Order: sequence, then structure tokens, then C-alpha cells
Amino acid sequence: MLRVTVVGAAGYIGGELLRLLLGHPEAEVVGAVSSRFPGKRIDGVHPNLRSVTDLTFCSAEDAPESDAVFLALPHRVAMTQIEQWRSRAGVVLDLTGDFRLHDTEVFRRYYGEEHLAPKLLDDFVPGLPELYRERLRTADLISVPGCMATAAVLALHPLVAHDLIDPERGAQVDAKTGSSGSGATAGQANLHAERSGAMRVFAPTRHRHEAEIAQHLGLPAAMTATGVEAVRGAQTLCHATLRPGVGTKDVRRAFRECYAAEPFVRIVAHQRGIYRYPDPKILLGSNFCDVGFALDEDTRRLSAIGALDNLVKGGAGNAVQSLNVRMGLPETLGLTFPGLHPL
Amino acid sequence: MLRVTVVGAAGYIGGELLRLLLGHPEAEVVGAVSSRFPGKRIDGVHPNLRSVTDLTFCSAEDAPESDAVFLALPHRVAMTQIEQWRSRAGVVLDLTGDFRLHDTEVFRRYYGEEHLAPKLLDDFVPGLPELYRERLRTADLISVPGCMATAAVLALHPLVAHDLIDPERGAQVDAKTGSSGSGATAGQANLHAERSGAMRVFAPTRHRHEAEIAQHLGLPAAMTATGVEAVRGAQTLCHATLRPGVGTKDVRRAFRECYAAEPFVRIVAHQRGIYRYPDPKILLGSNFCDVGFALDEDTRRLSAIGALDNLVKGGAGNAVQSLNVRMGLPETLGLTFPGLHPL
Amino acid sequence: MLRVTVVGAAGYIGGELLRLLLGHPEAEVVGAVSSRFPGKRIDGVHPNLRSVTDLTFCSAEDAPESDAVFLALPHRVAMTQIEQWRSRAGVVLDLTGDFRLHDTEVFRRYYGEEHLAPKLLDDFVPGLPELYRERLRTADLISVPGCMATAAVLALHPLVAHDLIDPERGAQVDAKTGSSGSGATAGQANLHAERSGAMRVFAPTRHRHEAEIAQHLGLPAAMTATGVEAVRGAQTLCHATLRPGVGTKDVRRAFRECYAAEPFVRIVAHQRGIYRYPDPKILLGSNFCDVGFALDEDTRRLSAIGALDNLVKGGAGNAVQSLNVRMGLPETLGLTFPGLHPL
Amino acid sequence: MLRVTVVGAAGYIGGELLRLLLGHPEAEVVGAVSSRFPGKRIDGVHPNLRSVTDLTFCSAEDAPESDAVFLALPHRVAMTQIEQWRSRAGVVLDLTGDFRLHDTEVFRRYYGEEHLAPKLLDDFVPGLPELYRERLRTADLISVPGCMATAAVLALHPLVAHDLIDPERGAQVDAKTGSSGSGATAGQANLHAERSGAMRVFAPTRHRHEAEIAQHLGLPAAMTATGVEAVRGAQTLCHATLRPGVGTKDVRRAFRECYAAEPFVRIVAHQRGIYRYPDPKILLGSNFCDVGFALDEDTRRLSAIGALDNLVKGGAGNAVQSLNVRMGLPETLGLTFPGLHPL
Repeated sequence: MLRVTVVGAAGYIGGELLRLLLGHPEAEVVGAVSSRFPGKRIDGVHPNLRSVTDLTFCSAEDAPESDAVFLALPHRVAMTQIEQWRSRAGVVLDLTGDFRLHDTEVFRRYYGEEHLAPKLLDDFVPGLPELYRERLRTADLISVPGCMATAAVLALHPLVAHDLIDPERGAQVDAKTGSSGSGATAGQANLHAERSGAMRVFAPTRHRHEAEIAQHLGLPAAMTATGVEAVRGAQTLCHATLRPGVGTKDVRRAFRECYAAEPFVRIVAHQRGIYRYPDPKILLGSNFCDVGFALDEDTRRLSAIGALDNLVKGGAGNAVQSLNVRMGLPETLGLTFPGLHPL
Repeated sequence: MLRVTVVGAAGYIGGELLRLLLGHPEAEVVGAVSSRFPGKRIDGVHPNLRSVTDLTFCSAEDAPESDAVFLALPHRVAMTQIEQWRSRAGVVLDLTGDFRLHDTEVFRRYYGEEHLAPKLLDDFVPGLPELYRERLRTADLISVPGCMATAAVLALHPLVAHDLIDPERGAQVDAKTGSSGSGATAGQANLHAERSGAMRVFAPTRHRHEAEIAQHLGLPAAMTATGVEAVRGAQTLCHATLRPGVGTKDVRRAFRECYAAEPFVRIVAHQRGIYRYPDPKILLGSNFCDVGFALDEDTRRLSAIGALDNLVKGGAGNAVQSLNVRMGLPETLGLTFPGLHPL
Repeated sequence: MLRVTVVGAAGYIGGELLRLLLGHPEAEVVGAVSSRFPGKRIDGVHPNLRSVTDLTFCSAEDAPESDAVFLALPHRVAMTQIEQWRSRAGVVLDLTGDFRLHDTEVFRRYYGEEHLAPKLLDDFVPGLPELYRERLRTADLISVPGCMATAAVLALHPLVAHDLIDPERGAQVDAKTGSSGSGATAGQANLHAERSGAMRVFAPTRHRHEAEIAQHLGLPAAMTATGVEAVRGAQTLCHATLRPGVGTKDVRRAFRECYAAEPFVRIVAHQRGIYRYPDPKILLGSNFCDVGFALDEDTRRLSAIGALDNLVKGGAGNAVQSLNVRMGLPETLGLTFPGLHPL
Repeated sequence: MLRVTVVGAAGYIGGELLRLLLGHPEAEVVGAVSSRFPGKRIDGVHPNLRSVTDLTFCSAEDAPESDAVFLALPHRVAMTQIEQWRSRAGVVLDLTGDFRLHDTEVFRRYYGEEHLAPKLLDDFVPGLPELYRERLRTADLISVPGCMATAAVLALHPLVAHDLIDPERGAQVDAKTGSSGSGATAGQANLHAERSGAMRVFAPTRHRHEAEIAQHLGLPAAMTATGVEAVRGAQTLCHATLRPGVGTKDVRRAFRECYAAEPFVRIVAHQRGIYRYPDPKILLGSNFCDVGFALDEDTRRLSAIGALDNLVKGGAGNAVQSLNVRMGLPETLGLTFPGLHPL
């Protein structure tokens, strides 16, 4: 039984980690750290866990030693606490943005500040098993990518791996996301009356996930991020131009070769029906990332599409999957919820 | 041209008052008072008014004399400021709960505090033209009822006026409402991720509007209030028991006699179609209150139903309608927007 | 391993049955009957089951013998097919309305037609383990109650069992429900543009679940049903009057005595927080029915509240729970998904 | 007083036309043609018009002569009926796709069929006053553009008119839209339970509006269209690359020069606040198209953004505005509703 601790356990990502880990057959939650609610019952903050657990939050000081610790902290806090947590856990899985970008220059550009632990950057392995599985098997520091980055990277990866797209043109990523991505802290921007029914372009340029996409793919990438009416779910439309001579068959083969054996990436490519392309609507609660594509052969313009639940495959689920890989457990352990339809 | 001032102009009710008054052919907005945003442009807070007005908010001190002032303040604040405003305006229309209940004992029970201006209570006429039109023609102090109270009172009024229901049994009112009713101030309860898709019983007993219903109808009334997924809109299902011998025809006649000449109350009683009963969905932005009923003749159980836009007929629109009555203007002036379908 | 068949497997309840049974450790889905889609892949209709199953639908004729068969058919169809299915399965669990009402007179009143298999009515045990667990252990014919009936019955049952409410006054039930309850067949009433954001009173009187409530509780019950913006989820507010002398403590004790040991009924009674009362928002996908109450001690008016996912505890989950009881399996088997927050 | 007729008056665009024209001070609705509902009351189909009008639908044969006729028909039907209607009205405003594309080859590519009235194509003036105002003053045949095309064209037009973007790279348009755009006819794809909460890529390539964008701007344009949770509203993110040396100031000036005098195009360019970029949420019911842009000066990548109500400025409102221009009326007549906030 793995002893695991969640730090930042009162947030939305923290709550998903708790939900998944409490249901994980090989994990025991030994600590749920919250600086705001120490001593308070977990299910007072995460009402879906009522009758599932009697645990209470604890302070960081009271957190026990553990085999793995998950950091679901605000950005910037993780890099100030990283030394503290790695000394108390065999494996640290960071879900913040602090250790996602390996180039401190890029970090400065996107985060507007200096990195506080640059020496550790190269020790972090991205928590994205589809691209970094082998390195994850021995990683003690894991940095889970951003939700929209994960959706875009998984959608574009086969095209890059098979060298099918024009690298100069790069990728234009149009990302849509629900409101849970901005966290559990109330503010005017997330007031229901303001956020409900919105199509809010909240980051037309320089979203931090943009830099992650470029880093993982080695491809110039531009991303716009729009909040749409949803609590969970993210979808990325990734526009690129195919190299001359590349056709639908090549793209299909690339996707198949990359993902046929992946337990959590499904290729969605249907001729008919309502769910012909990846749609997060049917993925909520699940750890799947659905990917697909559409191609205008006349213009060689391709749109690769990724969809996921931003809190699961875009965060907590991806982290648990990475832990499974790291610990040599079956990769799908604790992650088999299939999603609901309709919802 | 009436010179009008809106106090508390940065809130949601304040914004609706501005929208309606800026489009009112006989009104000129001379003051938009906001304690938070003096000097700031109105359309910075109410983005729907961009290009509609260049006005800025002012502080209370800078508010000019006016023919009418609308108080869209937090509860309790209105009764502390009432003397100040009535000295500076011919007519004061209060949209808070402060002057809705005429019995200080009842006020204490529902608001949990003492009334600060009890002597004024009898001078206030309820801003509900359908019941108090004659008194409104000469009223200088007008208290606009609560949104759910308005919907319930208009749904039940014909039954009471025609003495059709068993007064001892009273009325059980089930109210549903959107999130805008709780105002423009962000808090955990109204965080989009929490409020979205909710069916939240936020006041199963002792909602303040319950006391208003009882007061206007002279009938024991119990109300439960549930927040459902919507920004605007409120609906009340008002359950009562008919007196022996009363049938559908009698109820229909009562509604018709009360409302046939009312410009803003529509009797919705259709045999078929999707919109057979009052539904706020088609009323958003409009000043209509739709009313209807269903009757189980075997059990004499009647459900009277009311629906409205909580910010319009349930607040700002009702206030403007009351002003029109008070000033001898055509009652529908500035209030003719019919609502959108679909929406 | 139990061999189970789902009839009407292409509908929403059918899809939920498949989701639950495919994940059930002691069940094997041997047949998924659909008259519309024989030969078609299940995941073509239920996209959440992609990569979960390769099964295809079959026709009724091709359905294999099985230990249990679930009928998720349109109303009226179940009673015409019941003999056929009970001859081919050890246990039949019917999720339609056909065998819910044991009094043919009541059936006629609520369904507007004659019952076609009245002799079987007494052989059906209601699939509501909280009230009928012992009888279910040996039942070969099980009739799963309606979703709103289940929520209302579970909310009111402790009050009736402990004789706390005035039976003459009966119960007034106000039910709210999402759109999935009306099934997977498209029609004008469920067109997104019409149904979205609605507060649609679709059955102010004589909803069929009303009769179920009265039957299970032995109490006069009146129910109104309103569709609100949601796909899944149902909530019932059940208004009743306490007998003289009964107080909060008595009610609390009644709930605790009835449900302390129930695995799927949670008593929600919190002094603070957003989720103080049962709200289906946190129950989607789960088999929980949350119950709670609020009491105005001055007037002895009590509102008991029930909430559930209409497709799970209000249908498919309740059926699987009943099957677990019948087969002597752990009652929670295959039903432990805790729900998502936020969603 | 203009005598106007709406053909296809029972659809969603037809309903918006009726709403706007019934409130238009210089128009009189003399005919509302519906092949499905002749003789039926208009407000039976458009419940927001209850008490606004007593009109009934008529058949095409019974439609009176009129000064202007609006065709809100299904695609393909307009071109079969065009001769009939132009002989009975001074001005024909077509809101279908039939006369939007002037090149029959392009029409064939996007509509998959032959045009049936190619000779008329050159006589149609696009009903987009911002680009074609002068020609509209004398046009007898007007073709109102598609909703997403209008949003994209108005967002990109200043950049093209001022020659600021690299024409070779063209524009990548990412369009989001509500469900009302697909009309009032029920089908599985628009079933509430399926459409609700969706992020559905329904046209990743070859959407018909794509061809309109290219035609109006003379620019290669690729468009993807995604249905998001909304009934009304459309938003286009239009990605392009600026020519070397072009900066924010130039873009800003281009927008200002094009739109400073436009009554229905607002430039939304705010440094802070929730509504910094165009969002249809605050435009529902209004005839505004909000436009804005964001620029990454390092990469010269520009995202121009357009937002509108697909049924108003994206359809019926644009048509009425075009009629106002054609008839020499004040352009804003009947179109001054400012939109609601919050909604």
C-alpha cells in the first residue's frame, strides 16, 4: 500500500486527487494538507466525499512522511516548498506550473518572474506517460502538465512524431475550457452571473500553456484560451498545415501508431453521429483524453482536436497515472471510471 | 422630462434601472450613485450599456436633486439613508427589503433586527401597481416588493380576491430563482463552479419574501426558495386548496377579472405546447409577469404559478412601472421589450 | 458470475445499466437488446463506453438466457413482453412504470388505460432496498420505482415510519428534474433551444410518480413536476405538517434510525456551507440519495428534501442495488462511484 | 409605414424578424408566412410575442403584396421561390445561404449542388451595411450573410481594408456558436441531453460561412465551427499574421477608422475587467457586433475577435438594419435594445 499525501487538498485539483486516491486500491491517503482548513473534515469542503471518508485536513507541519506527495498548490508556492516536500516523500508530483518549463528564459517570459529553484528543473520529468513513460519509471520529481497543454500536445504529438506538418507554420491552438480551471477561490470573474453562458477570451496571447506546447513538441505554437459555459472540460483545436504529399491515411496511421496501445487516449474518428470529434462532455470524471482530426485535403489544412476533463486527465488523473507508472503498478489502477452519458 | 437618480447603481438591480431609465422616453438619468465606483464610467460595470451612455458614477454627496430617486441598496442601508434621500427627491422608490413589511414585529422575526425608521412604514405604498395602483398615484414613498413575493402574490391574488381558497390551509409556495438575485458581490456560494447546475435549497423556511406574501394576501403562507441553474428568472408554484364547490371555471374567471386589463400580467393557460405554464425563460428582460394555474378537481388542490424576470418585473421594471403610475405617464412607457425566444 | 441482459439498451436508462453492469465485478453483460439498433456497436450510441466494450446490440430474439434481465423499455411495452422475459431469466427487474402501482384502479387513473397483466402485480416487489430489502432477497420480479418517487419516498419515509406527520394533511411534493428523464428520443419539447434554461412545469397535477409516493407511504400525496436546467438530477421538496409536540430532535432521530446503516442514503444536515441540503449537483453518476429536512418549529411545517441522479439511484443504480440484494452479493458492488465536485 | 412580410415566419430567424418588425416604428407586418402553421396564431409558436400581437400565420398564397419581404427559409428553398417573391415585393431580403456566394463554382463546392438561379447572383447586394452601405441604398435584392461570417468579416475587415495582414497566410477562424443557429426543427443532435454542455466540433472544415469570409475579404480563410453551451450567440477568433512593421497602434487606428461612426459595431479594447474582449453573453437580443483584437508583437500574430447574437446582428437584426438603409430610414430604427447584463 502506497502512503500518499495531497498538499493543497482543499482546492479543486486537490479534491480530485483525494477522490481518485481514496478509491485507488493500492494507495492510502495519509495526509491532506490545507493551510486554510487544518482540522476540518475533508467532506466539509468536498461534499462528494461524504460517507466516503472521515479524514480531516492537516497543516503542512503535521503531514506524515509518505511514499508520494502531490502538490496542488497555487503557482509559485510549489517552488518555495519543493525542498521541504522532497525531503519527506519518495516521489513528488507537482501539479502547478512551477516546474513545467525547463528553460528559465521562457519561464520568465510567461510567468513574469524569476524561477526560484532553477537547478531542479532538469530533474523534473513531465507527468505525461504517453510521451515520457520510460523516464517516469524512475522519476522522483514529476511535473504534471497544464490541462490545455495536455490536450493540445496529445492531439498534435502524432503529427510531429511522424513529421507530417510544416514546422515553420507551427500550430495555432484554440482552447476552450470550463470554469473549474481557475480554481476554488471566488472572485468577480467567476461569479456565476458573470461567468455563466460566457464565451470569454481570457488569454488571447501568452497563455502559459502555450509555452508548454512548444516545449513538448518542439514546434512554434500560438494559443488562445476561451472560457465557455462548463464547469469541467477542455478542448483544443490545433490548426496546422500538412507537408506536401501527406494525406488522410498518413495522419490516421500516425495516430494509430502512437496511441493504439495507450490505455487513456482514444482516437475519435467517426463518419457519423453526434460525437464524431473529441468532446469533453462525455469525458467528465474520466481519465481519457480523446483525440481526433479533420483535414481539408485541398488546402492541406489540418485541425487536430483534443478533449479531456481538465481536473482529471488534465490534472489529478494524469498525476495518478504517472504515479502508477512510477511505482510499477498497472497503469489504469484507480482510473477506470468511464464517464457519463448523457450529462 | 423626469430627472431621476439611481442609488446603488453598480449592482444588478441598479444596472437594470439604468438600462430601463436610459431607454425611457420621459426620464433623464441625472445621477448614478455608487459608493464603490465614483468617477468610473457606468459602462465599465454594466458592459451592456457601452455606446448607450457616457455617464459616470457619482458619490452620494454629488448626487443632484431629482424628481425621483431609486434606492437599489443592500438591505438595512436604505433605512439608514431614507431621510437623506427623501429630502432630495420628490419620490423615493426603495427596492430593498427595508420598507416592505409594515409590522415591526414581523420585520424583527424575518430580518432578525429592529427597524430603524418604523414611523415611516405606513407612508410607504407597495410598488405593485396590480394591487395598489390607486394609492401609488399619490405616493411619495414606494417600496417595491421582493421578486419571489411579486411572482407569488400575482399568482395567488385572484384566488384571494375572489375568496376561492381555503384560508386556513394557507398557501405553500415553492420558489425557484436564478443567481442574479443574490447580487453582484462575489462569494463562495456564487462561484460559478459551485452554483452552476445546482438545485440549491437556500431558504427552506423563513425566507423574507414569505412574510411579504402573507402580508399582501392576508393568508398564511410558507415558502421554500431554491436556486436553480439560471442567471435571471424566478418562478413560484403556489399550492392551495380550493373551497368546496369551486371549479376550474371560477378560477379562470377570477384570473380574467383581475388581469384582463393589466398591461404586464399575462394569463398563460394553454392546452398544449411547450409553454403551457408560466416559465421565466421567455420573460428575461421583459416586464411581464406570467400567471397560470392547474387544478386537480378531484382533490381541489390548486397550483397557481407565477413567473417573471427577477431583475425586471421582480425589481427594476416594477419600480419604473410604479413611477409611471405615480407620474401619470402611460404605464408601459419604457417597458415594452417583449422578451426573447429562444434564449 | 451473473449473466445479465439489458432490454431497451439504447435508451438513457439502458446506457446507465450497461455502464454499471460492465463495471460490476460479478456481472457479465450477455445481451444488450435494442429493437432499433441490432448489430450496431453499443458505443456508437453510448459514446462514454468507447474502449470499455466491443459489444453490439442484439434483437430480442437473439437475446441469450440470463440470470437477470433488466427492462428499460417504454411504458406499456414492458407489460406486453413480461411473460417472454420471465421465461428466459431467473430474475426480471422492470424499470418502467408498468408494475409500480399495485392497484389497477389507481393505474387506470394515472396511466389512462387498463393494465394488461394485473395478475402479476402482486408478484412484483418494489426495487427500493431501503423499504423492501427483506422481500427483495427472494423476489423474482422486481419493479424499480420512478426517479422522483424514489427521492420523495426516501425523504418522507422516516417521518411516516415514526408517525411524525399529520396524515390528513398529507404531503405536497415539489419535484425538479433534468431533461434526461424524458428519454433519448428527440422532440420539440426537448430541443436544446427550448429546454435550455427552462423552468417548465410539465406536470402540475397527476404525475404518475405521485401515485407511487402515496402507495409506498400510505399517505395522500400531491406532486408537481418542473423541468429545470440540468441533464441529470432530481430533487424533491416534500412539505408536510408535523403532529403537535414533534420537534427537530424527533425528526432527526427518525432519519438516523431509518438510514444510519443504509449504504446509499446520506443524511445531509449541515449548519453551514453551500451544500447544507440535498442537491443532485454532487450526486451525478453516483448511487446516493441524499435526504435532509428543514423545520419551522413555530408552524410545525416541515420540508423533507431528497436528491439523486435520476438515471442512477433514480433508475439503473437502484436496479443494480436491488439485484445485489437479490443475489446475496455485497449491496454496494459496482456502485461505489462517489460523484464529482465541482461539476 | 412600410408593409413587410416575413416568409418562414415560424422558425427562429422568422421569430426574431417578427419581434423586431412588430416593434419597428415604421414597419407594419402584413404577412407572416408559414407552410406548417397557416391559420395558427403567431404567439403559439413564438411565446414571447404573447400580448404583443394577435396575428396569425398565413400560407404563401395568401401573403399580401408588400414593400419588403424577408425570406427566412431553409437553404435551397429561397432560390426556388425567389421569382415568386420579388414579383410581390419591392425589396427582397434573403436570410438563407442561397444568394450569399457570387461564384457558382464556390457555391457548388460548399453546398454540393448546382445553383438554381445563377443569373440573379450579381443582383444581390450583401446585407452588411458596414461594408456595402452605399450599394444597399438602391438594392432591391439583399442577401444577409451568415452569422459566423458576419462576426468574422467585421472582425477582420479593418485589417484587410488597411492592408495590415499577410494575405498569403490568410486567416484561421475559430467560430463558436449556440444551438439556435441550427434552427427550430428537433433532431437527435439538438436534443437537450446531447447538446447541453457540449463542445461539439460540427464543422471542422468546409463550413459554408468559410466561403463567405473569403469572398467578402478577398483573403484565404479557413474556419472551424464548434457548438458550445449557449442558445444564442456566436463568437469568432480570427487568427492572422501582421505584415512586418505593423504594430498595435496601426491596428487600433484601422479599427477606429472603420468603425468609429458605425452605430452597431463597438470596438471592445479594455485593459481590465471581465469583458475585455467581445463576448456574445452581453449582446443577446441586441444588434451590436462587438469587435476587438489581441496582438503578440513578438510574433506578429494577431487574433481579431467578433461577437454577436446570431439571430440578431447575425441574421434578423442585420436584415432590418439593411432595410432601414435601403428605405432611407434612420439606421438604428427598431434596433436599439442594448442587451442584458447579467444574463
